[in-house]
Amino acid sequence: MTSDSDPPGPDFSLDHVGREGLMASPGTELVTHDGTGRVELSFTVEDAGGAPPTQRSVRVPPGVTVFDSASWNGIAIDSTCGGHGTCHKCKVRVDTATPISRHDVRTFSRDQLDAGWRLACLVQATRDLKVEVPPLTTRPKAATVGVGRQVILRPAVQKRYVELAEPDLSDQRTDIDRLLAAIDDLAPQPDLHALRRLPQVLRAADWKVTAVVVDEVLVDVEPGDTTAQRYAIAFDLGTTTVVATLLDVALGTPVGVASMLNRQQPYGGDVITRISATMLDPEALPRLQQAAAATLAELAAQVCREGGVDPQHVYEVAIAGNATMTALVLGIDPEPLGVAPFVMSTAQPPTMLASDVGLELHPRARAVFFPALGAYVGGDIVAGMLATGMDRDKRTRLFIDVGTNCELVVSDGDRILSTAAPAGPAFEGGAIRCGMRAADGAIEVIKLGSTPEDAVQLGVIGDVEPKGLCGSGLVDAVAELVRVGLLDASGRFVPDEQAPEVAPALADRLTRIGEERVFVLHRPHAGAMPEECVVLSQRDVRELQFAKAAISTGWTLLLEELGLEHRDVQQVLMAGSFGSYISPASAVRIGLVPKLPVLRIVSAGNVAGEGAKMALLSVRERAGAAALLQEVTYVELSDRPDFNDRFVDQLAF
Amino acid sequence: MTSDSDPPGPDFSLDHVGREGLMASPGTELVTHDGTGRVELSFTVEDAGGAPPTQRSVRVPPGVTVFDSASWNGIAIDSTCGGHGTCHKCKVRVDTATPISRHDVRTFSRDQLDAGWRLACLVQATRDLKVEVPPLTTRPKAATVGVGRQVILRPAVQKRYVELAEPDLSDQRTDIDRLLAAIDDLAPQPDLHALRRLPQVLRAADWKVTAVVVDEVLVDVEPGDTTAQRYAIAFDLGTTTVVATLLDVALGTPVGVASMLNRQQPYGGDVITRISATMLDPEALPRLQQAAAATLAELAAQVCREGGVDPQHVYEVAIAGNATMTALVLGIDPEPLGVAPFVMSTAQPPTMLASDVGLELHPRARAVFFPALGAYVGGDIVAGMLATGMDRDKRTRLFIDVGTNCELVVSDGDRILSTAAPAGPAFEGGAIRCGMRAADGAIEVIKLGSTPEDAVQLGVIGDVEPKGLCGSGLVDAVAELVRVGLLDASGRFVPDEQAPEVAPALADRLTRIGEERVFVLHRPHAGAMPEECVVLSQRDVRELQFAKAAISTGWTLLLEELGLEHRDVQQVLMAGSFGSYISPASAVRIGLVPKLPVLRIVSAGNVAGEGAKMALLSVRERAGAAALLQEVTYVELSDRPDFNDRFVDQLAF
Repeated sequence: MTSDSDPPGPDFSLDHVGREGLMASPGTELVTHDGTGRVELSFTVEDAGGAPPTQRSVRVPPGVTVFDSASWNGIAIDSTCGGHGTCHKCKVRVDTATPISRHDVRTFSRDQLDAGWRLACLVQATRDLKVEVPPLTTRPKAATVGVGRQVILRPAVQKRYVELAEPDLSDQRTDIDRLLAAIDDLAPQPDLHALRRLPQVLRAADWKVTAVVVDEVLVDVEPGDTTAQRYAIAFDLGTTTVVATLLDVALGTPVGVASMLNRQQPYGGDVITRISATMLDPEALPRLQQAAAATLAELAAQVCREGGVDPQHVYEVAIAGNATMTALVLGIDPEPLGVAPFVMSTAQPPTMLASDVGLELHPRARAVFFPALGAYVGGDIVAGMLATGMDRDKRTRLFIDVGTNCELVVSDGDRILSTAAPAGPAFEGGAIRCGMRAADGAIEVIKLGSTPEDAVQLGVIGDVEPKGLCGSGLVDAVAELVRVGLLDASGRFVPDEQAPEVAPALADRLTRIGEERVFVLHRPHAGAMPEECVVLSQRDVRELQFAKAAISTGWTLLLEELGLEHRDVQQVLMAGSFGSYISPASAVRIGLVPKLPVLRIVSAGNVAGEGAKMALLSVRERAGAAALLQEVTYVELSDRPDFNDRFVDQLAF
Repeated sequence: MTSDSDPPGPDFSLDHVGREGLMASPGTELVTHDGTGRVELSFTVEDAGGAPPTQRSVRVPPGVTVFDSASWNGIAIDSTCGGHGTCHKCKVRVDTATPISRHDVRTFSRDQLDAGWRLACLVQATRDLKVEVPPLTTRPKAATVGVGRQVILRPAVQKRYVELAEPDLSDQRTDIDRLLAAIDDLAPQPDLHALRRLPQVLRAADWKVTAVVVDEVLVDVEPGDTTAQRYAIAFDLGTTTVVATLLDVALGTPVGVASMLNRQQPYGGDVITRISATMLDPEALPRLQQAAAATLAELAAQVCREGGVDPQHVYEVAIAGNATMTALVLGIDPEPLGVAPFVMSTAQPPTMLASDVGLELHPRARAVFFPALGAYVGGDIVAGMLATGMDRDKRTRLFIDVGTNCELVVSDGDRILSTAAPAGPAFEGGAIRCGMRAADGAIEVIKLGSTPEDAVQLGVIGDVEPKGLCGSGLVDAVAELVRVGLLDASGRFVPDEQAPEVAPALADRLTRIGEERVFVLHRPHAGAMPEECVVLSQRDVRELQFAKAAISTGWTLLLEELGLEHRDVQQVLMAGSFGSYISPASAVRIGLVPKLPVLRIVSAGNVAGEGAKMALLSVRERAGAAALLQEVTYVELSDRPDFNDRFVDQLAF
């Protein structure tokens, strides 16, 4: 198994090759890279149908293999091992100065080597390179996930059905060598569990078995042909809501989805209160860990039931959560995340067993976590960047995940900057007089009109009697009141005497509760007292003002870092459970996002969950997420002297 | 941690480099190796004291690094990381065509590279090579273990005490990055256990901690400086006896030794009866596994007590056992080992946690098993080959581990052959009329004289009244009786009437029990009946004859395979608990070993335990053991048509 002819995959995985670095002959110029900047690969892709070849140029971080560079950009190169140097199929032609690996020597003739033929998964892009890709012999399966991302299926979970020759005295190979020789396009390391099962299963199944490989590890041998049962679960581990998607990784299709409130809720609605809980009570950390694990386990059971899938056939899970959720589910003390200087234990949790986070799936199922850029730009955002292709798109884009902690990412197609803005609880209904979570009865859309008939039109979740106001409703309310003029630019309600002339159909809704001025959005019955109504109060407006000022200060500073103006932004991605529901028009009107045509503002949805799916469907995409740690610069705002001045500038609507 | 500048060690471990293979620049001849044969490295070692440089030539399997080749042969090259490409200290000068790695680029100037300077741990010996080794800047610690083997200390268990700078807003590195940056001569992968402890321990210990690294994995951080507590346990997991040695791997010295009978004894005295037990009773395997684990755990506790060592400070164990003992302690069904074609689940168990074999040491302590060459040449023999340097010694040597299953290894200094011979239970006292294990009361030495006074001199274990005959006594008895002529070459006692003239002082001891002729070795009292005496029976002689015939047939066939005569053998190593006690002279006389001067026959002692110690003291030696799988050819005797004829030829004394 560690023989010369079967190099285990890990040695050829992206991050290995990335680290292994440049080999060069004496003669050629020696260049090393610090991991920043990009190199340009010009692909000439020949068409199987005989159509003229297509040209594609892509820019990738130095050290990435040609194979990965292609995969990341949707350029398919033949491969059955997924780029681990074992299947010897990913043949490309590059310039002849490119180093030759032992596997090249095995694969190509001397003439072919001299002509520049190499295995793409072993060639690193250490400098600009021209790459000829021959026509595909097989059309790779692909799936569309994330925000229109086309992902070539290369799941870490692989199965191979084999029928082995029985051993005899002339062939005394060990069981594992016999099995591995039969799946030589992979080269996994067997784990103890698989080795324990191997002798019985092989003989009981008459030497007809299915090898189960997860990320270079042989985790099991199953009797007969089980290749059709290949599943994984993607988790979006949110502070409020946790979503699980059961995937058939062989087909790239979801077979079950479930979501529920994070069982950590009783310990507090946001990360800070949960961190505080662990600081006050030494027993809180294990309890929070257990609560998170229980949430994941319940969802896993639910999606398996829903999809009619035996949990024993789920071999991998991917978990995207913010830094605090990740620390808590792993049982890592989150206290340092809660106090300056906001330090994580690690940016990249190691790959572990799913059972380490309390999941009862296949006993050797793996759990992979997304890396975090910082204490407040966590794995959920990295997953979101993967799903939205923040590192692949040449456009200037702004990514906003709206929430108590609002994460911001700006890319100009080359550099990527990220930061976090403390927006406060306004969007989650906290500190808002009639605020509530986006649930039945929450007003999520508001339109104000000029006639008594269309004076106030409300969109209510569940089409029931309005009970309160959720984040998107709050933004709509303020935006509309600014539009009709009942709120001035400073965020103050206009004086009572002005109201009738400004908005005759709405003036009567402007009233008071005690000393505070409020605008009545919904009256349960004629003659109801303001206290009984769903209202927007002056204080609510202030809350939202502070939130949007924090956010807009954040992206303003990031744009300045890149030397860009608001108008340079070509697309704004509104992500997260709140961001996705905020009306682009209202977001623009209150200045939550740059003043741009609304068509440029896109609701991206639950991008963290989409990123988690991508990581399960493609080891290449997973490697891309890890690469983001090198590519993205985290900008700390809290220590910027000019932050407060800028914040005040941003308060006005 | 996965940044360009810190390649994790594993990428540079021996077997990685071995697999990574030859890189060459266009223009240089491309050679690949099938892993057989050897390449020759000529070392010129400069002396720190200014003495003239010394020359050494060594031959190693292709693909091994220059660093390993030197270490294996006791040639010290500067290194703090132990050859993992991280410390950049192992500078040597080779020819300029040698490929340049990124680490070379980091380490050397352009001129130095052109002059052939490289890091020895990244240069593979893919062809004959001249190597200049500069004077040592530090004198490496070494220990003498095995059969006079000088081992340079490079334990897999490493500790580093560090005092870290506290983080602030200008330095928000994660805890793990901060720690790893401070121990940059190592580049371990942190495990979950370490990451869980990291935040608390760092802050509680005021950022003064000791990093604990085992074989490329950061397993823990301990408050304060614990570098002096670095322990490991070497186990010789025998079918009959289990021996544990607690090692201080920092000093290379044993601090405690203990041994006990394998708790599996109740299931049978030899491997076959234990395998049968698992075939008859499905509950037997878990019970045997538990019994083995309990044996290891009891011995571990005992040596820790004896050495005054906290088990939490034991971070690694090495286990050398035959294929069956290894399978049983791992809970792997041994049935295929017991029936033709004698197939193992795996030749090399994966590295696992010590807790996987029931040991309660440091929670993340590792357990490493020796690889096996075949079902009947197991990890204990590989460990023995390591301890005796079978693969390093240029002499022609024969290694014999005497027992129910007798393992044989022959090396001519280049090729190494190995096989197993079924010797039967004679050496363990089984099927011998007065046979017993080598315990108090066992006759272990026998000399026959010509006068009534010195007629029969007995060496008895424990200097007590003789109770029976152990393996070495049996061999002595037969050898002496052959010498004095009471046994003829065919193994028959001479006729009663001949006895007096052949050996007057002994004739009266030749008598009968029932029909069977016996020789009285010890009479408890005058006039005791033969049944009451310790005797050697005609059947006993036959048992030993069959055992020695099987063994000598084995090594005869191996020598023939190498085209060697008996007299070509320069050294015979008698290993194992039986072999070590057999008198060389007697072994020669009965033909158990080739007819050689007795000085060439060496009792090697418990070489399996010694090999296990070496694996714990040096990752290089451990890699050497793994390399033996490639280097040694296993010869199956049971299917050789001529085996029986050869066997009969060997029956005579």
